[in-house]
Amino acid sequence: MRTAERNTKTRLSGTASPEPPGVTVADPSTAARLTALLAAFRPGDDALGVSELARRTGLPKTSVHRLSRHLVDHGLLERDGSALRLGLKLFEIGQLAVRQRGLVDTARPLLADLREATHNTVHLAVLEGTEVVYLDVLRGPDAPRLPSRIGGRFPAHATGVGKAILAFSPEDFVDTVIGAGLPRVSRRTITSPALLRRQLAKVADEGTAYEREESSIGTVCVASPIVDADGHAVAAISVAGWVNRMRTERLAPAVRTAALALSRTLR
Amino acid sequence: MRTAERNTKTRLSGTASPEPPGVTVADPSTAARLTALLAAFRPGDDALGVSELARRTGLPKTSVHRLSRHLVDHGLLERDGSALRLGLKLFEIGQLAVRQRGLVDTARPLLADLREATHNTVHLAVLEGTEVVYLDVLRGPDAPRLPSRIGGRFPAHATGVGKAILAFSPEDFVDTVIGAGLPRVSRRTITSPALLRRQLAKVADEGTAYEREESSIGTVCVASPIVDADGHAVAAISVAGWVNRMRTERLAPAVRTAALALSRTLR
Repeated sequence: MRTAERNTKTRLSGTASPEPPGVTVADPSTAARLTALLAAFRPGDDALGVSELARRTGLPKTSVHRLSRHLVDHGLLERDGSALRLGLKLFEIGQLAVRQRGLVDTARPLLADLREATHNTVHLAVLEGTEVVYLDVLRGPDAPRLPSRIGGRFPAHATGVGKAILAFSPEDFVDTVIGAGLPRVSRRTITSPALLRRQLAKVADEGTAYEREESSIGTVCVASPIVDADGHAVAAISVAGWVNRMRTERLAPAVRTAALALSRTLR
Repeated sequence: MRTAERNTKTRLSGTASPEPPGVTVADPSTAARLTALLAAFRPGDDALGVSELARRTGLPKTSVHRLSRHLVDHGLLERDGSALRLGLKLFEIGQLAVRQRGLVDTARPLLADLREATHNTVHLAVLEGTEVVYLDVLRGPDAPRLPSRIGGRFPAHATGVGKAILAFSPEDFVDTVIGAGLPRVSRRTITSPALLRRQLAKVADEGTAYEREESSIGTVCVASPIVDADGHAVAAISVAGWVNRMRTERLAPAVRTAALALSRTLR
């Protein structure tokens, strides 16, 4: 799950960077070009024209034409007039890519219960490199529109789930995250390595992590890790809501209880 | 969304066939080979060795080696020792492939409410060709373990959601499904075209579709379509449970109400 060493050159844009850079194809192989075409789509895109795909990938328009025809033939892309969009087959394959499928399935009812009990938005996330990837998001009726979405990414240090996972991870994961820099996501994001380490020590003691407007102003969150038999985090869950409406300390026991139950069930 | 004409040669195995055939690569293009490699993974697989991937795709082991290296470089596959597995990036890209992302996001809270109100399993599905693809599944505490899963497929005529969508689809979609044959999934599956057409006419009248052990013995389901401004189905939702515990007629108004609310919200 954690591939800090992973190639980030063509990384899919997460929710953190609203204007991600285009994907550049340095590797001229057909496989690399095909992959770049798929990775050129971003959240919010629907269909993209050939010119836009060429611009984003740096490929000649003739190549985009030819390669996309093949991808359409195999259902990875679909045509929409003269434009192209990602094929539903990618959704199907993508669902199989969550190695911890059992985690998602097992967590689902508990997440639904947490949403029901708190009326706020619940998350399930894993760590990948220096970022968290949301495997599940159930929006609550009382919660603000958060930037989190299923399949989206966020810098780990700026989120409750990320801090919950890091606090229960081997030291070198924390070093990797800090070594990569601690980008400011909102004006309250913790960007000081010393402060982050102190907070993580506290999270490790208490079993719950708080996030106060560190990922987006106006929202708070309380998170707790899902741990394996060795006590290492494999994921985390959280409940997030409005800063002036959700009392994180009051919800902490509920989140912690659900996390402990889920950890036990998975063992 | 509906691509009845789509190439089904390398179609991802759905939940309908517990032992899907290996993917065979007739088309020698790189796109075909890449698709075959990605589609070779099945539900329940974790990491697969190069030999197994070669066996499933019919590709030479040297090709599997070479192609998988590119896919690993771009995060679509990940290494696990000498074996390979689908990369988390595929999950991320796959989430972007659901064109009706707005549908999924909007349906989520309503599905959670339905699960809470019924304690059974709720589904959101769309039609693709002759099959439904599940975009969302929330398992209920009282429901049996159903074969449905997010990203999974099922023959449309054998499911409540499929019949709900077909009843609110143009005639030629129904013709396509019937023309492709009506495979028997359980011993109660409707395999008679005349009987299916009669049932669809009833569903069109009532706005709700029932499924009685037609997809798996022991379970029943009640479904209702999400329709656009022209009255055509774009998706369907359902509640499924045990045949001798869940009273479909009693739950029908709840499912219909949620479907109508969702249809209105999406307009």
